[in-house]
Amino acid sequence: MLELKKLCEKLGYEFQNIDLLRQALCHRSIGKPSNERLEFLGDAILSFVMADELFHRHPDLDEGALSRLRSNLVNGELLAQLAREMELGQYIYFGVGESKSGGGERPSILANTVEAIIGAIYLDSNLEECRKRVLQWYWMRLEEPSIISYKDPKTNLQEFIQSKKMPLPIYKVLKIDGAAHSQIFHIECKVQGVDYFPVGEGSTKRKAEQNAANLLLEYLTKINLQSPVEEQ
Amino acid sequence: MLELKKLCEKLGYEFQNIDLLRQALCHRSIGKPSNERLEFLGDAILSFVMADELFHRHPDLDEGALSRLRSNLVNGELLAQLAREMELGQYIYFGVGESKSGGGERPSILANTVEAIIGAIYLDSNLEECRKRVLQWYWMRLEEPSIISYKDPKTNLQEFIQSKKMPLPIYKVLKIDGAAHSQIFHIECKVQGVDYFPVGEGSTKRKAEQNAANLLLEYLTKINLQSPVEEQ
Repeated sequence: MLELKKLCEKLGYEFQNIDLLRQALCHRSIGKPSNERLEFLGDAILSFVMADELFHRHPDLDEGALSRLRSNLVNGELLAQLAREMELGQYIYFGVGESKSGGGERPSILANTVEAIIGAIYLDSNLEECRKRVLQWYWMRLEEPSIISYKDPKTNLQEFIQSKKMPLPIYKVLKIDGAAHSQIFHIECKVQGVDYFPVGEGSTKRKAEQNAANLLLEYLTKINLQSPVEEQ
Repeated sequence: MLELKKLCEKLGYEFQNIDLLRQALCHRSIGKPSNERLEFLGDAILSFVMADELFHRHPDLDEGALSRLRSNLVNGELLAQLAREMELGQYIYFGVGESKSGGGERPSILANTVEAIIGAIYLDSNLEECRKRVLQWYWMRLEEPSIISYKDPKTNLQEFIQSKKMPLPIYKVLKIDGAAHSQIFHIECKVQGVDYFPVGEGSTKRKAEQNAANLLLEYLTKINLQSPVEEQ
């Protein structure tokens, strides 16, 4: 109980109903009910809060740039960073197998728990209270645009791939449809040795390639987040 | 102006600032500023409103089922249906090429415009007002569970594929990782003749297959939504 008080201080939020926080800390390895329903809710809240914030902060950015910024802010890597800043790992309840295998350090588990906590704060209060906390956790990343990447997704993908010494991605137009003034390009992005070949769509070749690159980068990042466990 | 009043009646919402509605009706073929930024915002609002509603309406459903329900409610097909009920197509502003090619009938354009209108209502009022309208548009689909599909995504995919006389999907486990109590399966779903092979992840084989089936079905539905234009 005392422990959770400390966590609440780090979250900047005092729960009326501390059971909601406890629920948010239950990894699915403990069986049902786990924090997965709260994670579903929290994920939707986070996406909306970020979309709304970026929409207002950046009146000059188009929807593609807003989308990229949001995906940089809500991705698993950044959520896991937030969790580490709050020293969240030690508070997560695990089933026996998982706690022994160091689940509290796994980025994907940390990220999911942050989303579940967002859901719990919302249920314990309301959207405005919840929004305030979330923006507080993110303030530095929102104020300091240099911290989040405005880079083109193709550049991001290429940098990631080069850091892993993998071969460069290949883009291929699969299909173009739509009327003359609103064509839609379908472009596949392939990296040799990767089993996932996402297809991006967009109103220009460049946008479609960017979307495909984003999909592949998200996939590779996820795989990468889970890789420490693979090595066991 | 009179016309937009009629549309407002159908939306069940009277705009303080009618320019927001006008903006929401501007297809990207008219050039910038179009409704794409509003669509980005509206999409996030819709996802959150549905997540919140389903979370409270269905306390017994797990996050997988909630996710499936939501994806059935926010998909392009259903949004285009809502647009048709509001007779929205006739109000959309197009650039010359697009209006001639019958853009007001295209399901993907109708769906995007509904999302942009949701963004516009939110900016014109607040989240609670916006939520009320959206739930009003959806009430029958939310009250009558039979209208939306609770079916397993694999069944949905199979039915769709059979209706198109395409060969059945093949699922293949690409990878299993994670600790003993929280394994993560990566399963690919392939349909002969389709260039997109999504990989689903999940804590069980079944969940991973369902996620892959959902991704493929979303892709095929999108392609299908755009197909009338291809035939030109």
